[in-house]
Amino acid sequence: MEHTNYVHGYSNREAMRLLDQAETLDEIIHHDTVFSKGSLVLEAGCGVGAQTKIIAPKNPESNFLSIDLSETSLREARELIQSLHITNVEFRQADIYHLPFTDETFDSVLICFVLEHLQNPKAALRELKRVVKQGGTMMAIEGDHGSTFFFPDSTSAHSAIDCQIQLQKQNGGNSNIGRELYPLFKSIDLASVSVSPRMVYVDASKPRLVEGFIKKTFTAMIEGVGEKAIQQGIIDGATFEQGINDLYRTAEPDGVFSYTFFKAFGIKENATSPGGKE
Amino acid sequence: MEHTNYVHGYSNREAMRLLDQAETLDEIIHHDTVFSKGSLVLEAGCGVGAQTKIIAPKNPESNFLSIDLSETSLREARELIQSLHITNVEFRQADIYHLPFTDETFDSVLICFVLEHLQNPKAALRELKRVVKQGGTMMAIEGDHGSTFFFPDSTSAHSAIDCQIQLQKQNGGNSNIGRELYPLFKSIDLASVSVSPRMVYVDASKPRLVEGFIKKTFTAMIEGVGEKAIQQGIIDGATFEQGINDLYRTAEPDGVFSYTFFKAFGIKENATSPGGKE
Repeated sequence: MEHTNYVHGYSNREAMRLLDQAETLDEIIHHDTVFSKGSLVLEAGCGVGAQTKIIAPKNPESNFLSIDLSETSLREARELIQSLHITNVEFRQADIYHLPFTDETFDSVLICFVLEHLQNPKAALRELKRVVKQGGTMMAIEGDHGSTFFFPDSTSAHSAIDCQIQLQKQNGGNSNIGRELYPLFKSIDLASVSVSPRMVYVDASKPRLVEGFIKKTFTAMIEGVGEKAIQQGIIDGATFEQGINDLYRTAEPDGVFSYTFFKAFGIKENATSPGGKE
Repeated sequence: MEHTNYVHGYSNREAMRLLDQAETLDEIIHHDTVFSKGSLVLEAGCGVGAQTKIIAPKNPESNFLSIDLSETSLREARELIQSLHITNVEFRQADIYHLPFTDETFDSVLICFVLEHLQNPKAALRELKRVVKQGGTMMAIEGDHGSTFFFPDSTSAHSAIDCQIQLQKQNGGNSNIGRELYPLFKSIDLASVSVSPRMVYVDASKPRLVEGFIKKTFTAMIEGVGEKAIQQGIIDGATFEQGINDLYRTAEPDGVFSYTFFKAFGIKENATSPGGKE
Protein backbone atom coordinates (compact mmCIF):
# COMPACT_ATOMS: atom_id res chain seq x y z
CA MET A 1 0.00 0.00 0.00
CA GLU A 2 2.59 2.60 1.01
CA HIS A 3 4.30 2.24 -2.35
CA THR A 4 1.12 2.87 -4.29
CA ASN A 5 0.44 5.95 -2.19
CA TYR A 6 3.97 7.17 -2.74
CA VAL A 7 3.80 6.78 -6.49
CA HIS A 8 0.49 8.52 -6.97
CA GLY A 9 1.20 11.14 -4.32
CA TYR A 10 -1.95 10.56 -2.31
CA SER A 11 -2.18 10.59 1.43
CA ASN A 12 -2.93 7.21 2.90
CA ARG A 13 -6.48 8.20 3.79
CA GLU A 14 -7.26 9.57 0.35
CA ALA A 15 -5.86 6.43 -1.28
CA MET A 16 -8.05 4.25 0.93
CA ARG A 17 -11.10 6.32 0.02
CA LEU A 18 -10.43 5.98 -3.70
CA LEU A 19 -9.80 2.30 -3.20
CA ASP A 20 -13.11 1.96 -1.39
CA GLN A 21 -14.92 3.44 -4.35
CA ALA A 22 -13.27 1.41 -7.06
CA GLU A 23 -13.20 -1.77 -5.10
CA THR A 24 -16.88 -2.39 -4.50
CA LEU A 25 -18.88 -4.57 -6.80
CA ASP A 26 -21.71 -2.01 -6.68
CA GLU A 27 -19.40 0.63 -8.09
CA ILE A 28 -18.13 -1.64 -10.89
CA ILE A 29 -21.67 -2.57 -11.91
CA HIS A 30 -23.72 0.53 -11.10
CA HIS A 31 -21.44 3.57 -11.44
CA ASP A 32 -23.21 4.34 -14.70
CA THR A 33 -26.73 3.19 -13.79
CA VAL A 34 -28.06 6.70 -14.16
CA PHE A 35 -31.36 7.95 -15.57
CA SER A 36 -32.48 11.34 -16.85
CA LYS A 37 -34.01 13.70 -14.33
CA GLY A 38 -37.73 13.05 -13.93
CA SER A 39 -37.59 9.55 -15.44
CA LEU A 40 -40.13 6.91 -14.53
CA VAL A 41 -38.13 3.69 -14.32
CA LEU A 42 -39.46 0.14 -14.18
CA GLU A 43 -37.20 -2.19 -12.22
CA ALA A 44 -38.21 -5.68 -13.32
CA GLY A 45 -37.62 -8.48 -10.82
CA CYS A 46 -36.46 -6.46 -7.83
CA GLY A 47 -36.43 -9.45 -5.47
CA VAL A 48 -35.69 -8.30 -1.92
CA GLY A 49 -34.44 -4.92 -3.16
CA ALA A 50 -30.70 -5.65 -3.25
CA GLN A 51 -30.19 -3.52 -6.39
CA THR A 52 -33.09 -1.14 -5.65
CA LYS A 53 -31.35 0.14 -2.54
CA ILE A 54 -28.30 1.12 -4.64
CA ILE A 55 -30.02 2.44 -7.76
CA ALA A 56 -32.83 4.52 -6.23
CA PRO A 57 -30.61 6.76 -4.02
CA LYS A 58 -28.23 7.13 -6.97
CA ASN A 59 -31.08 8.65 -9.01
CA PRO A 60 -32.97 10.86 -6.52
CA GLU A 61 -34.76 12.77 -9.29
CA SER A 62 -36.15 9.64 -10.92
CA ASN A 63 -39.08 7.55 -9.72
CA PHE A 64 -38.90 3.79 -9.59
CA LEU A 65 -41.62 1.21 -9.88
CA SER A 66 -40.08 -2.04 -8.74
CA ILE A 67 -41.93 -5.25 -9.50
CA ASP A 68 -41.50 -8.88 -8.55
CA LEU A 69 -43.53 -12.06 -8.86
CA SER A 70 -43.05 -12.94 -5.20
CA GLU A 71 -45.12 -11.13 -2.55
CA THR A 72 -42.71 -12.46 0.09
CA SER A 73 -39.72 -10.84 -1.62
CA LEU A 74 -41.66 -7.61 -2.13
CA ARG A 75 -42.47 -7.44 1.60
CA GLU A 76 -38.76 -7.69 2.40
CA ALA A 77 -37.90 -5.14 -0.28
CA ARG A 78 -40.48 -2.66 1.05
CA GLU A 79 -39.11 -2.99 4.59
CA LEU A 80 -35.54 -2.55 3.39
CA ILE A 81 -36.29 0.57 1.34
CA GLN A 82 -38.37 2.11 4.16
CA SER A 83 -35.67 1.40 6.72
CA LEU A 84 -33.21 3.29 4.49
CA HIS A 85 -35.64 6.26 4.17
CA ILE A 86 -35.64 5.94 0.38
CA THR A 87 -38.78 7.65 -0.91
CA ASN A 88 -38.63 7.41 -4.72
CA VAL A 89 -39.60 3.72 -5.03
CA GLU A 90 -43.00 2.06 -5.25
CA PHE A 91 -43.45 -1.70 -5.27
CA ARG A 92 -46.00 -3.82 -7.06
CA GLN A 93 -46.54 -7.53 -7.61
CA ALA A 94 -46.40 -8.38 -11.32
CA ASP A 95 -45.46 -11.10 -13.79
CA ILE A 96 -42.60 -10.06 -16.05
CA TYR A 97 -44.13 -12.00 -18.97
CA HIS A 98 -47.51 -10.24 -18.59
CA LEU A 99 -46.97 -6.75 -17.30
CA PRO A 100 -50.04 -4.93 -15.95
CA PHE A 101 -49.07 -1.70 -17.73
CA THR A 102 -50.23 -0.11 -20.96
CA ASP A 103 -47.81 0.29 -23.86
CA GLU A 104 -45.14 3.00 -23.56
CA THR A 105 -45.58 3.73 -19.86
CA PHE A 106 -41.94 4.01 -18.75
CA ASP A 107 -38.96 6.13 -19.72
CA SER A 108 -36.60 3.31 -18.88
CA VAL A 109 -36.59 -0.33 -17.90
CA LEU A 110 -33.89 -1.93 -15.80
CA ILE A 111 -33.44 -5.65 -15.18
CA CYS A 112 -30.63 -6.98 -12.95
CA PHE A 113 -29.75 -10.62 -12.30
CA VAL A 114 -33.17 -11.82 -13.44
CA LEU A 115 -32.77 -13.03 -17.04
CA GLU A 116 -30.45 -15.81 -15.80
CA HIS A 117 -33.45 -17.36 -14.02
CA LEU A 118 -35.95 -17.18 -16.88
CA GLN A 119 -36.93 -19.96 -19.28
CA ASN A 120 -37.66 -17.42 -21.99
CA PRO A 121 -35.55 -14.30 -21.50
CA LYS A 122 -36.35 -13.05 -25.01
CA ALA A 123 -40.11 -13.09 -24.35
CA ALA A 124 -39.56 -11.20 -21.10
CA LEU A 125 -37.41 -8.57 -22.84
CA ARG A 126 -40.02 -8.20 -25.58
CA GLU A 127 -42.73 -7.60 -22.97
CA LEU A 128 -40.51 -5.08 -21.18
CA LYS A 129 -39.89 -3.29 -24.47
CA ARG A 130 -43.64 -2.99 -24.97
CA VAL A 131 -44.03 -0.81 -21.88
CA VAL A 132 -41.06 1.47 -22.70
CA LYS A 133 -41.77 4.79 -24.44
CA GLN A 134 -40.42 5.45 -27.93
CA GLY A 135 -36.89 6.73 -27.39
CA GLY A 136 -36.79 5.16 -23.95
CA THR A 137 -33.93 2.99 -22.76
CA MET A 138 -33.50 -0.59 -21.65
CA MET A 139 -30.68 -1.75 -19.40
CA ALA A 140 -29.83 -5.29 -18.33
CA ILE A 141 -27.13 -6.55 -15.98
CA GLU A 142 -26.23 -10.23 -15.71
CA GLY A 143 -23.35 -12.38 -14.53
CA ASP A 144 -21.68 -15.21 -16.43
CA HIS A 145 -20.35 -18.13 -14.40
CA GLY A 146 -18.51 -19.51 -17.43
CA SER A 147 -16.32 -16.41 -17.40
CA THR A 148 -14.74 -17.43 -14.11
CA PHE A 149 -11.02 -18.21 -13.99
CA PHE A 150 -8.46 -18.10 -11.23
CA PHE A 151 -4.99 -18.92 -9.99
CA PRO A 152 -4.05 -21.46 -8.81
CA ASP A 153 -6.27 -23.20 -11.35
CA SER A 154 -8.26 -26.21 -10.12
CA THR A 155 -10.39 -28.80 -11.87
CA SER A 156 -12.33 -29.44 -8.65
CA ALA A 157 -13.14 -25.75 -8.32
CA HIS A 158 -14.44 -25.67 -11.90
CA SER A 159 -16.53 -28.80 -11.13
CA ALA A 160 -18.00 -27.10 -8.05
CA ILE A 161 -18.91 -24.01 -10.11
CA ASP A 162 -20.42 -26.32 -12.73
CA CYS A 163 -22.86 -27.62 -10.06
CA GLN A 164 -24.40 -24.17 -9.86
CA ILE A 165 -24.58 -24.00 -13.66
CA GLN A 166 -26.24 -27.45 -13.88
CA LEU A 167 -28.80 -26.70 -11.15
CA GLN A 168 -29.66 -23.38 -12.78
CA LYS A 169 -30.14 -25.22 -16.08
CA GLN A 170 -32.48 -27.75 -14.44
CA ASN A 171 -34.63 -24.81 -13.35
CA GLY A 172 -34.75 -23.58 -16.94
CA GLY A 173 -32.23 -20.82 -16.29
CA ASN A 174 -28.82 -19.97 -17.73
CA SER A 175 -25.85 -19.06 -15.52
CA ASN A 176 -23.82 -18.06 -18.58
CA ILE A 177 -26.34 -15.56 -19.93
CA GLY A 178 -24.06 -12.51 -19.55
CA ARG A 179 -22.28 -13.21 -22.85
CA GLU A 180 -25.68 -13.49 -24.58
CA LEU A 181 -26.93 -10.01 -23.76
CA TYR A 182 -25.76 -8.56 -27.07
CA PRO A 183 -27.64 -11.06 -29.27
CA LEU A 184 -30.66 -10.89 -26.92
CA PHE A 185 -30.91 -7.10 -27.12
CA LYS A 186 -30.41 -7.19 -30.89
CA SER A 187 -33.06 -9.91 -31.26
CA ILE A 188 -35.80 -7.63 -29.91
CA ASP A 189 -34.81 -4.86 -32.34
CA LEU A 190 -33.43 -2.31 -29.95
CA ALA A 191 -31.30 0.46 -31.43
CA SER A 192 -27.85 1.59 -30.29
CA VAL A 193 -27.25 -1.73 -28.56
CA SER A 194 -24.00 -1.73 -26.66
CA VAL A 195 -22.75 -4.26 -24.15
CA SER A 196 -19.90 -3.57 -21.77
CA PRO A 197 -18.21 -6.32 -19.81
CA ARG A 198 -17.50 -5.55 -16.17
CA MET A 199 -14.63 -7.79 -15.23
CA VAL A 200 -14.08 -8.17 -11.51
CA TYR A 201 -10.37 -8.95 -11.44
CA VAL A 202 -9.15 -9.59 -7.91
CA ASP A 203 -5.64 -10.01 -6.56
CA ALA A 204 -4.17 -9.30 -3.13
CA SER A 205 -3.76 -5.61 -3.98
CA LYS A 206 -7.55 -5.35 -3.65
CA PRO A 207 -8.25 -6.64 -0.13
CA ARG A 208 -11.88 -5.51 -0.07
CA LEU A 209 -12.73 -7.53 -3.19
CA VAL A 210 -10.74 -10.52 -1.91
CA GLU A 211 -12.96 -10.57 1.16
CA GLY A 212 -16.17 -9.17 -0.30
CA PHE A 213 -16.19 -10.83 -3.70
CA ILE A 214 -14.06 -13.99 -3.80
CA LYS A 215 -15.02 -15.20 -0.31
CA LYS A 216 -18.34 -13.70 0.71
CA THR A 217 -20.04 -13.40 -2.68
CA PHE A 218 -18.82 -15.95 -5.20
CA THR A 219 -17.46 -18.84 -3.14
CA ALA A 220 -20.28 -18.52 -0.59
CA MET A 221 -22.80 -18.75 -3.44
CA ILE A 222 -21.18 -21.89 -4.86
CA GLU A 223 -20.89 -23.36 -1.37
CA GLY A 224 -24.64 -22.87 -1.01
CA VAL A 225 -25.53 -25.31 -3.78
CA GLY A 226 -23.31 -28.12 -2.45
CA GLU A 227 -25.89 -30.08 -0.51
CA LYS A 228 -28.36 -30.14 -3.39
CA ALA A 229 -25.69 -30.96 -6.00
CA ILE A 230 -24.30 -33.85 -3.94
CA GLN A 231 -27.83 -35.12 -3.22
CA GLN A 232 -28.61 -35.11 -6.95
CA GLY A 233 -25.37 -36.90 -7.78
CA ILE A 234 -24.01 -34.03 -9.88
CA ILE A 235 -20.79 -34.18 -7.85
CA ASP A 236 -19.32 -36.25 -5.03
CA GLY A 237 -18.80 -34.74 -1.61
CA ALA A 238 -15.01 -34.95 -1.63
CA THR A 239 -14.62 -33.20 -5.00
CA PHE A 240 -17.05 -30.48 -3.99
CA GLU A 241 -15.22 -29.86 -0.72
CA GLN A 242 -11.89 -29.75 -2.56
CA GLY A 243 -13.38 -27.33 -5.10
CA ILE A 244 -14.59 -24.98 -2.37
CA ASN A 245 -11.20 -25.15 -0.63
CA ASP A 246 -9.50 -24.35 -3.94
CA LEU A 247 -11.79 -21.36 -4.49
CA TYR A 248 -10.89 -20.02 -1.03
CA ARG A 249 -7.26 -20.71 -1.91
CA THR A 250 -7.48 -18.09 -4.69
CA ALA A 251 -8.06 -15.52 -1.94
CA GLU A 252 -4.55 -16.08 -0.53
CA PRO A 253 -1.88 -13.38 -1.11
CA ASP A 254 -0.57 -15.07 -4.28
CA GLY A 255 -4.00 -15.96 -5.66
CA VAL A 256 -5.98 -14.33 -8.46
CA PHE A 257 -9.68 -14.50 -9.25
CA SER A 258 -11.66 -13.15 -12.19
CA TYR A 259 -15.38 -13.01 -12.96
CA THR A 260 -17.19 -10.97 -15.59
CA PHE A 261 -20.57 -9.27 -15.39
CA PHE A 262 -22.20 -7.81 -18.49
CA LYS A 263 -24.24 -4.66 -18.81
CA ALA A 264 -26.39 -4.11 -21.88
CA PHE A 265 -27.94 -0.89 -23.08
CA GLY A 266 -30.40 -0.28 -25.88
CA ILE A 267 -32.95 2.25 -27.12
CA LYS A 268 -36.51 1.60 -28.28
CA GLU A 269 -36.82 3.44 -31.54
CA ASN A 270 -39.46 3.52 -34.18
CA ALA A 271 -38.09 1.48 -37.06
CA THR A 272 -39.37 4.05 -39.55
CA SER A 273 -37.88 7.08 -37.78
CA PRO A 274 -34.51 6.50 -36.16
CA GLY A 275 -34.43 10.02 -34.72
CA GLY A 276 -37.99 9.75 -33.47
CA LYS A 277 -37.13 9.94 -29.81
CA GLU A 278 -36.62 13.70 -29.81
CA MET B 1 -23.81 2.60 -36.62
CA GLU B 2 -26.09 5.53 -37.50
CA HIS B 3 -27.86 5.16 -34.18
CA THR B 4 -24.63 5.34 -32.20
CA ASN B 5 -23.59 8.42 -34.09
CA TYR B 6 -26.94 10.00 -33.46
CA VAL B 7 -26.87 9.39 -29.74
CA HIS B 8 -23.37 10.68 -29.17
CA GLY B 9 -23.72 13.49 -31.66
CA TYR B 10 -20.66 12.63 -33.72
CA SER B 11 -20.40 12.85 -37.44
CA ASN B 12 -20.09 9.48 -39.13
CA ARG B 13 -16.46 10.07 -40.00
CA GLU B 14 -15.49 11.13 -36.49
CA ALA B 15 -17.27 8.11 -35.03
CA MET B 16 -15.40 5.79 -37.35
CA ARG B 17 -12.11 7.39 -36.38
CA LEU B 18 -12.80 6.94 -32.66
CA LEU B 19 -13.89 3.40 -33.35
CA ASP B 20 -10.66 2.73 -35.23
CA GLN B 21 -8.66 3.82 -32.23
CA ALA B 22 -10.54 1.88 -29.61
CA GLU B 23 -11.00 -1.18 -31.75
CA THR B 24 -7.44 -2.23 -32.38
CA LEU B 25 -5.73 -4.75 -30.20
CA ASP B 26 -2.60 -2.58 -30.18
CA GLU B 27 -4.57 0.25 -28.62
CA ILE B 28 -6.12 -1.99 -25.95
CA ILE B 29 -2.74 -3.41 -24.99
CA HIS B 30 -0.31 -0.55 -25.64
CA HIS B 31 -2.19 2.73 -25.14
CA ASP B 32 -0.35 3.09 -21.83
CA THR B 33 3.01 1.56 -22.83
CA VAL B 34 4.77 4.87 -22.27
CA PHE B 35 8.19 5.63 -20.81
CA SER B 36 9.72 8.76 -19.35
CA LYS B 37 11.54 11.06 -21.76
CA GLY B 38 15.15 9.95 -22.19
CA SER B 39 14.57 6.44 -20.87
CA LEU B 40 16.77 3.56 -21.91
CA VAL B 41 14.39 0.62 -22.30
CA LEU B 42 15.25 -3.06 -22.63
CA GLU B 43 12.74 -4.99 -24.70
CA ALA B 44 13.29 -8.62 -23.79
CA GLY B 45 12.36 -11.19 -26.42
CA CYS B 46 11.49 -8.88 -29.31
CA GLY B 47 11.08 -11.73 -31.82
CA VAL B 48 10.50 -10.32 -35.30
CA GLY B 49 9.67 -6.87 -33.89
CA ALA B 50 5.88 -7.13 -33.83
CA GLN B 51 5.63 -5.13 -30.58
CA THR B 52 8.81 -3.09 -31.20
CA LYS B 53 7.25 -1.43 -34.22
CA ILE B 54 4.34 -0.20 -32.07
CA ILE B 55 6.19 0.74 -28.90
CA ALA B 56 9.24 2.54 -30.32
CA PRO B 57 7.33 5.15 -32.40
CA LYS B 58 5.01 5.65 -29.43
CA ASN B 59 8.02 6.69 -27.32
CA PRO B 60 10.17 8.78 -29.69
CA GLU B 61 12.17 10.30 -26.84
CA SER B 62 13.17 6.92 -25.38
CA ASN B 63 15.83 4.56 -26.69
CA PHE B 64 15.17 0.87 -27.02
CA LEU B 65 17.56 -2.03 -26.88
CA SER B 66 15.61 -5.03 -28.18
CA ILE B 67 17.05 -8.46 -27.59
CA ASP B 68 16.17 -11.95 -28.72
CA LEU B 69 17.79 -15.38 -28.58
CA SER B 70 17.23 -16.00 -32.29
CA GLU B 71 19.50 -14.32 -34.85
CA THR B 72 16.96 -15.20 -37.53
CA SER B 73 14.19 -13.32 -35.74
CA LEU B 74 16.52 -10.38 -35.08
CA ARG B 75 17.36 -10.12 -38.77
CA GLU B 76 13.64 -9.86 -39.59
CA ALA B 77 13.10 -7.37 -36.78
CA ARG B 78 15.97 -5.15 -37.98
CA GLU B 79 14.59 -5.13 -41.52
CA LEU B 80 11.09 -4.31 -40.31
CA ILE B 81 12.22 -1.41 -38.11
CA GLN B 82 14.49 -0.01 -40.83
CA SER B 83 11.72 -0.24 -43.41
CA LEU B 84 9.52 1.83 -41.08
CA HIS B 85 12.28 4.43 -40.61
CA ILE B 86 12.24 3.92 -36.84
CA THR B 87 15.57 5.15 -35.48
CA ASN B 88 15.37 4.73 -31.69
CA VAL B 89 15.87 0.96 -31.57
CA GLU B 90 19.04 -1.13 -31.44
CA PHE B 91 19.02 -4.91 -31.64
CA ARG B 92 21.28 -7.43 -29.96
CA GLN B 93 21.34 -11.19 -29.61
CA ALA B 94 21.09 -12.21 -25.95
CA ASP B 95 19.81 -14.92 -23.62
CA ILE B 96 17.09 -13.66 -21.31
CA TYR B 97 18.35 -15.92 -18.50
CA HIS B 98 21.94 -14.57 -18.79
CA LEU B 99 21.84 -10.98 -19.90
CA PRO B 100 25.12 -9.49 -21.18
CA PHE B 101 24.55 -6.27 -19.20
CA THR B 102 25.89 -5.01 -15.90
CA ASP B 103 23.51 -4.45 -12.99
CA GLU B 104 21.22 -1.43 -13.13
CA THR B 105 21.75 -0.57 -16.79
CA PHE B 106 18.18 0.22 -17.87
CA ASP B 107 15.49 2.65 -16.77
CA SER B 108 12.78 0.18 -17.77
CA VAL B 109 12.33 -3.36 -18.92
CA LEU B 110 9.45 -4.50 -21.10
CA ILE B 111 8.56 -8.10 -21.92
CA CYS B 112 5.62 -8.95 -24.22
CA PHE B 113 4.28 -12.41 -25.06
CA VAL B 114 7.53 -14.09 -23.99
CA LEU B 115 6.96 -15.43 -20.46
CA GLU B 116 4.32 -17.83 -21.84
CA HIS B 117 7.11 -19.64 -23.71
CA LEU B 118 9.61 -19.92 -20.84
CA GLN B 119 10.21 -22.91 -18.62
CA ASN B 120 11.25 -20.64 -15.77
CA PRO B 121 9.55 -17.26 -16.07
CA LYS B 122 10.48 -16.31 -12.52
CA ALA B 123 14.21 -16.77 -13.18
CA ALA B 124 13.92 -14.66 -16.33
CA LEU B 125 12.10 -11.89 -14.45
CA ARG B 126 14.74 -11.98 -11.70
CA GLU B 127 17.51 -11.60 -14.28
CA LEU B 128 15.63 -8.73 -15.93
CA LYS B 129 15.21 -7.05 -12.54
CA ARG B 130 18.98 -7.25 -12.03
CA VAL B 131 19.65 -4.98 -15.00
CA VAL B 132 16.98 -2.39 -14.06
CA LYS B 133 18.10 0.72 -12.15
CA GLN B 134 16.82 1.35 -8.63
CA GLY B 135 13.48 3.09 -9.08
CA GLY B 136 13.19 1.73 -12.59
CA THR B 137 10.09 0.00 -13.89
CA MET B 138 9.22 -3.43 -15.19
CA MET B 139 6.29 -4.11 -17.50
CA ALA B 140 5.01 -7.46 -18.75
CA ILE B 141 2.18 -8.25 -21.15
CA GLU B 142 0.82 -11.76 -21.61
CA GLY B 143 -2.30 -13.48 -22.89
CA ASP B 144 -4.32 -16.16 -21.13
CA HIS B 145 -5.99 -18.78 -23.32
CA GLY B 146 -8.01 -20.08 -20.36
CA SER B 147 -9.79 -16.73 -20.21
CA THR B 148 -11.47 -17.38 -23.56
CA PHE B 149 -15.24 -17.69 -23.70
CA PHE B 150 -17.76 -17.11 -26.44
CA PHE B 151 -21.30 -17.43 -27.72
CA PRO B 152 -22.56 -19.76 -29.02
CA ASP B 153 -20.58 -21.90 -26.58
CA SER B 154 -18.98 -25.07 -27.99
CA THR B 155 -17.19 -28.00 -26.36
CA SER B 156 -15.33 -28.69 -29.63
CA ALA B 157 -14.06 -25.13 -29.78
CA HIS B 158 -12.78 -25.41 -26.20
CA SER B 159 -11.09 -28.71 -27.14
CA ALA B 160 -9.42 -27.04 -30.13
CA ILE B 161 -8.14 -24.22 -27.90
CA ASP B 162 -6.92 -26.82 -25.43
CA CYS B 163 -4.66 -28.29 -28.15
CA GLN B 164 -2.70 -25.04 -28.19
CA ILE B 165 -2.52 -25.11 -24.36
CA GLN B 166 -1.29 -28.73 -24.34
CA LEU B 167 1.34 -28.17 -27.05
CA GLN B 168 2.60 -25.08 -25.25
CA LYS B 169 2.84 -27.13 -22.04
CA GLN B 170 4.85 -29.84 -23.83
CA ASN B 171 7.35 -27.14 -24.77
CA GLY B 172 7.60 -26.12 -21.13
CA GLY B 173 5.45 -23.04 -21.62
CA ASN B 174 2.18 -21.84 -20.12
CA SER B 175 -0.65 -20.46 -22.26
CA ASN B 176 -2.54 -19.38 -19.15
CA ILE B 177 0.25 -17.28 -17.69
CA GLY B 178 -1.62 -13.95 -17.88
CA ARG B 179 -3.47 -14.59 -14.64
CA GLU B 180 -0.16 -15.39 -12.92
CA LEU B 181 1.52 -12.05 -13.57
CA TYR B 182 0.53 -10.65 -10.20
CA PRO B 183 2.07 -13.48 -8.13
CA LEU B 184 5.11 -13.56 -10.46
CA PHE B 185 5.83 -9.85 -10.08
CA LYS B 186 5.30 -10.09 -6.30
CA SER B 187 7.58 -13.12 -6.09
CA ILE B 188 10.60 -11.13 -7.34
CA ASP B 189 9.94 -8.39 -4.76
CA LEU B 190 8.90 -5.57 -7.01
CA ALA B 191 7.14 -2.63 -5.38
CA SER B 192 3.85 -1.02 -6.45
CA VAL B 193 2.86 -4.15 -8.34
CA SER B 194 -0.37 -3.64 -10.23
CA VAL B 195 -1.92 -5.86 -12.86
CA SER B 196 -4.64 -4.69 -15.19
CA PRO B 197 -6.65 -7.11 -17.28
CA ARG B 198 -7.26 -6.07 -20.89
CA MET B 199 -10.37 -7.87 -21.94
CA VAL B 200 -10.95 -7.98 -25.66
CA TYR B 201 -14.73 -8.30 -25.76
CA VAL B 202 -16.01 -8.57 -29.32
CA ASP B 203 -19.54 -8.49 -30.68
CA ALA B 204 -20.91 -7.43 -34.06
CA SER B 205 -20.86 -3.77 -33.00
CA LYS B 206 -17.05 -3.98 -33.33
CA PRO B 207 -16.52 -5.15 -36.92
CA ARG B 208 -12.76 -4.47 -36.93
CA LEU B 209 -12.19 -6.74 -33.93
CA VAL B 210 -14.53 -9.40 -35.36
CA GLU B 211 -12.31 -9.55 -38.43
CA GLY B 212 -8.96 -8.66 -36.91
CA PHE B 213 -9.15 -10.47 -33.61
CA ILE B 214 -11.67 -13.35 -33.68
CA LYS B 215 -10.86 -14.49 -37.21
CA LYS B 216 -7.38 -13.36 -38.17
CA THR B 217 -5.67 -13.46 -34.78
CA PHE B 218 -7.21 -15.95 -32.39
CA THR B 219 -8.90 -18.55 -34.60
CA ALA B 220 -6.06 -18.44 -37.15
CA MET B 221 -3.59 -19.14 -34.31
CA ILE B 222 -5.60 -22.13 -33.04
CA GLU B 223 -6.06 -23.37 -36.62
CA GLY B 224 -2.29 -23.32 -36.95
CA VAL B 225 -1.71 -26.00 -34.32
CA GLY B 226 -4.27 -28.42 -35.78
CA GLU B 227 -1.94 -30.59 -37.81
CA LYS B 228 0.49 -31.13 -34.96
CA ALA B 229 -2.26 -31.72 -32.38
CA ILE B 230 -4.01 -34.32 -34.58
CA GLN B 231 -0.67 -35.97 -35.39
CA GLN B 232 0.11 -36.27 -31.67
CA GLY B 233 -3.34 -37.68 -30.92
CA ILE B 234 -4.33 -34.76 -28.67
CA ILE B 235 -7.55 -34.40 -30.68
CA ASP B 236 -9.25 -36.14 -33.62
CA GLY B 237 -9.55 -34.37 -36.93
CA ALA B 238 -13.35 -34.12 -36.93
CA THR B 239 -13.52 -32.54 -33.47
CA PHE B 240 -10.77 -30.08 -34.33
CA GLU B 241 -12.50 -29.06 -37.55
CA GLN B 242 -15.79 -28.62 -35.72
CA GLY B 243 -14.01 -26.55 -33.07
CA ILE B 244 -12.52 -24.22 -35.66
CA ASN B 245 -15.89 -23.90 -37.40
CA ASP B 246 -17.49 -23.05 -34.06
CA LEU B 247 -14.85 -20.39 -33.36
CA TYR B 248 -15.56 -18.77 -36.75
CA ARG B 249 -19.27 -19.07 -35.88
CA THR B 250 -18.73 -16.63 -32.97
CA ALA B 251 -17.81 -14.00 -35.59
CA GLU B 252 -21.36 -14.06 -36.99
CA PRO B 253 -23.67 -11.08 -36.28
CA ASP B 254 -25.21 -12.76 -33.21
CA GLY B 255 -21.92 -14.15 -31.88
CA VAL B 256 -19.75 -12.93 -29.00
CA PHE B 257 -16.09 -13.59 -28.22
CA SER B 258 -13.98 -12.66 -25.24
CA TYR B 259 -10.26 -13.03 -24.47
CA THR B 260 -8.23 -11.36 -21.75
CA PHE B 261 -4.66 -10.09 -21.87
CA PHE B 262 -2.89 -9.00 -18.71
CA LYS B 263 -0.45 -6.15 -18.23
CA ALA B 264 1.73 -6.04 -15.12
CA PHE B 265 3.66 -3.10 -13.77
CA GLY B 266 6.18 -2.95 -10.93
CA ILE B 267 9.03 -0.82 -9.58
CA LYS B 268 12.45 -1.99 -8.47
CA GLU B 269 12.98 -0.38 -5.12
CA ASN B 270 15.60 -0.76 -2.48
CA ALA B 271 13.98 -2.81 0.27
CA THR B 272 15.52 -0.56 2.93
CA SER B 273 14.38 2.71 1.35
CA PRO B 274 10.96 2.63 -0.25
CA GLY B 275 11.25 6.22 -1.44
CA GLY B 276 14.79 5.70 -2.73
CA LYS B 277 13.94 6.16 -6.36
CA GLU B 278 13.90 9.96 -6.15
